Amino acid sequence: MNTPQIIGKKRDGQPLTKEEIDFLIRGFSEGSVPDYQMSAFLMAVFFRGMELDETLSLTRAMINSGKVLDLSRLPGVKVDKHSTGGVGDKVSIVLAPLVAAAGVRIPMVSGRTLGHTGGTLDKLESIPGLRTVLSPGEFVRNVERVGFSIAAQSRELVPADEGMYALRGVTGTVESVPLIVSSILSKKLAAGIDAIVFDVKCGAGAFMPELSRAEELARELVRVTSLMGKNASALITDMEQPLGNAVGNALEIKESLDCLKGGGPADLTAVTMELGVEMLRLAGVESDRARALEKLEKLRSGGAALQKFVEFVEAQGGDARVVEKPSLLPAAAAVEVVLAPCEGYVKGIDAKTLGEICVDMGGGRRKRTDAVDASVGVVLRAKVGDAVTRGQDLVEVHLRRDRSAVWVADLMTRLERVFSFSEAPVPERRLIMERLPVQGPAAKA
Amino acid sequence: MNTPQIIGKKRDGQPLTKEEIDFLIRGFSEGSVPDYQMSAFLMAVFFRGMELDETLSLTRAMINSGKVLDLSRLPGVKVDKHSTGGVGDKVSIVLAPLVAAAGVRIPMVSGRTLGHTGGTLDKLESIPGLRTVLSPGEFVRNVERVGFSIAAQSRELVPADEGMYALRGVTGTVESVPLIVSSILSKKLAAGIDAIVFDVKCGAGAFMPELSRAEELARELVRVTSLMGKNASALITDMEQPLGNAVGNALEIKESLDCLKGGGPADLTAVTMELGVEMLRLAGVESDRARALEKLEKLRSGGAALQKFVEFVEAQGGDARVVEKPSLLPAAAAVEVVLAPCEGYVKGIDAKTLGEICVDMGGGRRKRTDAVDASVGVVLRAKVGDAVTRGQDLVEVHLRRDRSAVWVADLMTRLERVFSFSEAPVPERRLIMERLPVQGPAAKA
Repeated sequence: MNTPQIIGKKRDGQPLTKEEIDFLIRGFSEGSVPDYQMSAFLMAVFFRGMELDETLSLTRAMINSGKVLDLSRLPGVKVDKHSTGGVGDKVSIVLAPLVAAAGVRIPMVSGRTLGHTGGTLDKLESIPGLRTVLSPGEFVRNVERVGFSIAAQSRELVPADEGMYALRGVTGTVESVPLIVSSILSKKLAAGIDAIVFDVKCGAGAFMPELSRAEELARELVRVTSLMGKNASALITDMEQPLGNAVGNALEIKESLDCLKGGGPADLTAVTMELGVEMLRLAGVESDRARALEKLEKLRSGGAALQKFVEFVEAQGGDARVVEKPSLLPAAAAVEVVLAPCEGYVKGIDAKTLGEICVDMGGGRRKRTDAVDASVGVVLRAKVGDAVTRGQDLVEVHLRRDRSAVWVADLMTRLERVFSFSEAPVPERRLIMERLPVQGPAAKA
Repeated sequence: MNTPQIIGKKRDGQPLTKEEIDFLIRGFSEGSVPDYQMSAFLMAVFFRGMELDETLSLTRAMINSGKVLDLSRLPGVKVDKHSTGGVGDKVSIVLAPLVAAAGVRIPMVSGRTLGHTGGTLDKLESIPGLRTVLSPGEFVRNVERVGFSIAAQSRELVPADEGMYALRGVTGTVESVPLIVSSILSKKLAAGIDAIVFDVKCGAGAFMPELSRAEELARELVRVTSLMGKNASALITDMEQPLGNAVGNALEIKESLDCLKGGGPADLTAVTMELGVEMLRLAGVESDRARALEKLEKLRSGGAALQKFVEFVEAQGGDARVVEKPSLLPAAAAVEVVLAPCEGYVKGIDAKTLGEICVDMGGGRRKRTDAVDASVGVVLRAKVGDAVTRGQDLVEVHLRRDRSAVWVADLMTRLERVFSFSEAPVPERRLIMERLPVQGPAAKA
């Protein structure tokens, strides 16, 4: 068995054996398979795909490259949620305390901002003092005491994924279903979960713009999780426009707090609630959708979810006073407003471009080592379907004071162009585009 | 412009611009495009191919990565021959002195043994003292004085190819027409040639086993050379069985000498003559095939070709006495004979497996740094179509004395299995499978 042969086999469309996949991933972890062979392999997988057995073998090989957390001593079903990433997607920050308030344990391993989509960890770190890099022991203790923790992937877990994920980002091999599935599942399963709901984003602002591709990914995520012996379900949700109104780290924390206090934008609340229903179902807490919704709504408006969030912030070293006093969050020095250029209805808001503009403002990363400015970002004052009058506020822009007038003028023009308008009313888009029901642990047919 | 975007564009089947290809090749030469991005790009090219303009841009970018030899001060048309590689292919060693004896200048840059196919340089280096690593100045001087030189690629010429060629060998991206074409042509054109004939090998022992693929490669080689402003033609020749009888470095030199003396195996002589006809045509020396053949036959049987070879050996520091006394070449300590296991006709000789067996005997390389034993190899005593009687000599095996009896017995069995037999006579295969006529310098239509 040698690496060029394995690459050649995949290139020619032949399925790889478990032994071949193990050889490759072990070699990559140990350094005997260099980056240039792994990237050629990843590109071959991009073109040829993988059969179910190969994806399972790949996921297992990646898990076996590092440690696996044992959460079996914690009571109940440990449930997680994973989103494929979108613009303005701050769901985890509301959902985790909400579902934890219902008594479910949530060991949530999360990621950072990269490209045009934001990362939960960067958003949380805009809370002064809050740490997201925890030791495995601290992470488990927080899940036990608070009910949930949101933390960075430990480098002891799935080390093979770190190198593969980095390579994919710079070699055009991100959008491959088996590579996405094995990357997500190896990390989630190594974190010791029993069940998971996937929020697969679909639309211009998502990695999977087409519904058919999003469906394929959602089906494969649920199927492979089930074959790995865990419970899973999935929602496909709209990412044609940003979720909620705020895009930017501290601004999104503020909006999340609104939502935890019983307010917040309707779309953010709806997606959070639907994912919460799935998590209660997966945890065996409540299988009836209406009763689950009622339960979650009580926890949200009654303050229990907010209280869980306070406990979480304190447990991870953050200043929990931000909950009552959001002005303690980093704030931008300057606030400008983009005005509506015409009368009509908002027809579209290009989420991807908006995400890229926020990166240019300093709120995201071009490469891993870039620093992120927590204070900058935008708040949308109109969303798709809203009627607008010429000259009304369209976008609130939070920016650094050191920008030149030309730079700001250009930014405002770019932000205006993110919007498209229509004279006629715009039909409402479905927020929850599809649901894949819970699939329990299964053996291969 | 950035590398992941360029890779992604090729991955999605969009043609790349000249600027994008320049950016990539320059970056790779300078080190800003790492191996892992280049290998992902190469795999994307493997799947998506390249349009004619892209192949031209790639070839030019590779040439521009280093120096270009200027042979314009040498009189006449400088012609070369390139073979895509086969087992027992010692054509260059006979062809270059033969055509040089007709007054044509041949600046021949050649390669080393790798995988199951032999390399002209390793064969030549079995002549005591002969050097194939020359400075560009020495190479040009030898072409001027002797009429031809056969030397290793200078590292100053097409440095980009060295890294790309090495990557392709270990990432399953060898068999891609645009990558083969740009690799061959960049090296040949940087060596300052005016015209070239391609010997595209086809059959089980070649890199292109299928005729359709060999045709595609031959057409593309001629077309791109023509668009690069040079004359080109091509033959597709049979590589279903080895060419000639000898496989192994010193053994092939001996067979080449036989051929230069007017003898040698019929198939080797025929392919050499047909390629010689093309070279005389390309050089403008003789366009009529019959007259060209007559001329070459005279130079071969009359000793002029052999005399050129002597001059070449002396100019490159070799011991020219081997020409009259081949026993001065390295000789194997032990010679065994494989006997025919049955009566009948030889139906096939698996050239690829035979080439691999010779590598195992020490005559080739598994990796670039392996040493090659010049003395070992085989001489076939029967070829496809020959009638054999049970127990007659089938293969003469030249091997080292330090091999164990078990190893030798296994070797003999493997060699016997390289042959297949038939009770009925075997129809003759065409040696020259196809001819692509000379195409002059052309502008893109």
